[in-house]
Amino acid sequence: MADTARFGISMDHGLLERFDKLVQRRGYQNRSEAIRDLIREKLVQEEWEEGQEVVGVVTLLFDHHQRNLSDELTESQHQEPELVIATTHIHLDRDNCLEMIAVKGRPEEVRDLASALIGIKGVKHGELTATSTGSNLH
Amino acid sequence: MADTARFGISMDHGLLERFDKLVQRRGYQNRSEAIRDLIREKLVQEEWEEGQEVVGVVTLLFDHHQRNLSDELTESQHQEPELVIATTHIHLDRDNCLEMIAVKGRPEEVRDLASALIGIKGVKHGELTATSTGSNLH
Amino acid sequence: MADTARFGISMDHGLLERFDKLVQRRGYQNRSEAIRDLIREKLVQEEWEEGQEVVGVVTLLFDHHQRNLSDELTESQHQEPELVIATTHIHLDRDNCLEMIAVKGRPEEVRDLASALIGIKGVKHGELTATSTGSNLH
Amino acid sequence: MADTARFGISMDHGLLERFDKLVQRRGYQNRSEAIRDLIREKLVQEEWEEGQEVVGVVTLLFDHHQRNLSDELTESQHQEPELVIATTHIHLDRDNCLEMIAVKGRPEEVRDLASALIGIKGVKHGELTATSTGSNLH
Repeated sequence: MADTARFGISMDHGLLERFDKLVQRRGYQNRSEAIRDLIREKLVQEEWEEGQEVVGVVTLLFDHHQRNLSDELTESQHQEPELVIATTHIHLDRDNCLEMIAVKGRPEEVRDLASALIGIKGVKHGELTATSTGSNLH
Repeated sequence: MADTARFGISMDHGLLERFDKLVQRRGYQNRSEAIRDLIREKLVQEEWEEGQEVVGVVTLLFDHHQRNLSDELTESQHQEPELVIATTHIHLDRDNCLEMIAVKGRPEEVRDLASALIGIKGVKHGELTATSTGSNLH
Repeated sequence: MADTARFGISMDHGLLERFDKLVQRRGYQNRSEAIRDLIREKLVQEEWEEGQEVVGVVTLLFDHHQRNLSDELTESQHQEPELVIATTHIHLDRDNCLEMIAVKGRPEEVRDLASALIGIKGVKHGELTATSTGSNLH
Repeated sequence: MADTARFGISMDHGLLERFDKLVQRRGYQNRSEAIRDLIREKLVQEEWEEGQEVVGVVTLLFDHHQRNLSDELTESQHQEPELVIATTHIHLDRDNCLEMIAVKGRPEEVRDLASALIGIKGVKHGELTATSTGSNLH
């Protein structure tokens, strides 16, 4: 590809041996692919620290028998309609539901919405996963 | 409710004051709700350490122009059909896609599948988010 | 104590049972102690997000045979003399050393110093651990 | 050096440009140094997952006025004398103390000791930082 750069890196044989095992265990096709992944992880961390537009996933676990919970979840998500991209609802068993909510916005807005959702009465567990819009990651 | 326990806890006024601000900032309705959340977070961590059946969400960011990527993602997910519950695909812009994949299984199996997916050539960023089946969290 | 507050919280019996096991496993003397710890963890996170004065520990692992490494470590720490409180150096084996460096300052300054130290040639592994001055945690 | 390997890696120019900025911001001397660091971070994570002998730092923040706290800290550390390598005690202000405790052992033992220390009444905040003996990191 015209837009691909190549450069050499050096490391101790012992470290390289252990890196190659890691590449194999994680199922990477080659060293470059693994190293690009390590770099992108750091860049995503920095996007969140710097306040750029980011993408996140809010994961919610809850008991759907909890009165009004579904209504509150829906309402909270609609209060910031420009933040929520899509929501998937999964029935884990008779009681428990998993909801995966894709959100996009500034880190502060995304964190506030996630806090509001995770704080709703009846939510058993919630997490905000930080990722990126991808536009600055190649 | 018949199955609700009540008990008293003590803390320094200064700590309580700061806790109350945290409850408010995070949008919790009361102290009990916030404390239950803090407890459940620790319990989820332990389920993953102990090897019980767990639920997770794999978040993948990728450029859909990458040749064969969609095929490989689909194939990897079908190699462990009993692990993958559901997948949602989101078009972030002309190039970038976000995929949220709900998975259930033993921590080791879930981690292996996540590693395989994140290691596919063309995936820009991937994360495994740990949550729970909810059956041991009340 | 005159400055101790007491209040009641409620939770499902199932959650309480699992919380009590956690209290026991972690060696807490009672529920209040465990809950105060969970709250303080969140408050420390917020101090770092808000930019208040914080305390941190930089952990460095390195091979002392690496030429000039000790000089560079010492020099880097002295370039920000008001940040570094104390340093402990431990000889793990013939080759490997562990250094624990206590630092105090604004989150940004502390992170920059940690990055500089971790980035010195010959450092095998480094981490910045976030804690607090304690003056707002009771 | 006789024991140094060199190999080439490829990446998109856009990613490389962002990586080079990261290298500069973090104060690395060159790309190889930064990449070696990213690799070692992953290897340390794996040592802790696999149960090998590891090194850790327990960071404790506490008010030294808390009755018996110092005695309990000392006693807990002496109950596992083969785990604790060294302890540094720092006076942050009139009330608050920071203690950095270097420990070595199997992950399970190190985690148990850290839990016991963090769980002592009067400890305001505690963290276990995971690092390595260094003998498998080059």
